[in-house]
Amino acid sequence: MKFCSQCGHSVSQHIPQGDSRLRYVCDHCQTIHYQNPNIVAGCVPTWGTQVLLCRRAIEPRKGFWTLPAGFMENGETVEQAAQRETREEACAEVANLSIYTLIDVPHINQVHIFYRAELLSRDFAAGEESLEVRLFDEADIPWSELAFRTVSRTLECFFADRPGQVYPVRSEAVPPLAGLIKPQQ
Amino acid sequence: MKFCSQCGHSVSQHIPQGDSRLRYVCDHCQTIHYQNPNIVAGCVPTWGTQVLLCRRAIEPRKGFWTLPAGFMENGETVEQAAQRETREEACAEVANLSIYTLIDVPHINQVHIFYRAELLSRDFAAGEESLEVRLFDEADIPWSELAFRTVSRTLECFFADRPGQVYPVRSEAVPPLAGLIKPQQ
Repeated sequence: MKFCSQCGHSVSQHIPQGDSRLRYVCDHCQTIHYQNPNIVAGCVPTWGTQVLLCRRAIEPRKGFWTLPAGFMENGETVEQAAQRETREEACAEVANLSIYTLIDVPHINQVHIFYRAELLSRDFAAGEESLEVRLFDEADIPWSELAFRTVSRTLECFFADRPGQVYPVRSEAVPPLAGLIKPQQ
Repeated sequence: MKFCSQCGHSVSQHIPQGDSRLRYVCDHCQTIHYQNPNIVAGCVPTWGTQVLLCRRAIEPRKGFWTLPAGFMENGETVEQAAQRETREEACAEVANLSIYTLIDVPHINQVHIFYRAELLSRDFAAGEESLEVRLFDEADIPWSELAFRTVSRTLECFFADRPGQVYPVRSEAVPPLAGLIKPQQ
């Protein structure tokens, strides 16, 4: 951030009065520009014993498999965001969503929230951001070709919990990857 | 948003290619400025059978009682945010956090996430944003003087679940209040 989105003048970093963190503050109109984490919402769409995965057509992690998920938008609920992303990436409708994993990814300022969900039909297809969409049996999950650790972790939990049919909500964090460069803010 | 935070030129609203929503896009450098919901993180701090509440010293809802909660910051986990807010508002330390309610407030682009938590001691005090901090028995909760519906709802769930000592994670949304004016983006 270099300029104030309210008045267009330059910003600089200060700790505002009563605050304890560096913020971008406008040098002219004094507007404080807060920056906060984003929510990524997704789901584990199931059809019987199978799980729907999408192979990514876009970066990051193009060509790798993921659960349908993406940035939550203003004006929607987390659950609606998960349903919309499933519609966009897999042209699929899901219902009966139950919150399942909340995984912090603090080094990139994200919180990933996944729901368990039921596909309403076998009517699905690759959306614009997917190369391919498929149902997988547990034995066929492409573990080494999964796009993100929050996806791997959610699937690990899902298959560990499924035999007992009890799915406790998990709240945990993933640590930074070795050698990861902190994204510029 | 009127100006580009990257180059300082004016922005206007367009639907970018491959997108389906109006975004602020810079007329000069074409940067797309996404706007996304914020997480408010808080907890239900308990000491034996009592719950800690804070009376707000600041707007909105100055003078009303709340659970310690506030905007999650970049670089922290939701749980760390809940602990930090408890430290800031109630000068109190909590441990053994368990995720409890996730409540969407889509008309103001917020998601409120509360944890159950144990106070480490009776050592607490009003922080800068609180007028007063007190432990309440269930019978004394000031229901009509609670600051926010997500706080009321979380406390309702907590006291409903407590007799059975089973606290299922709740994921739900609050509807807009009648007559509420949508905040300017």
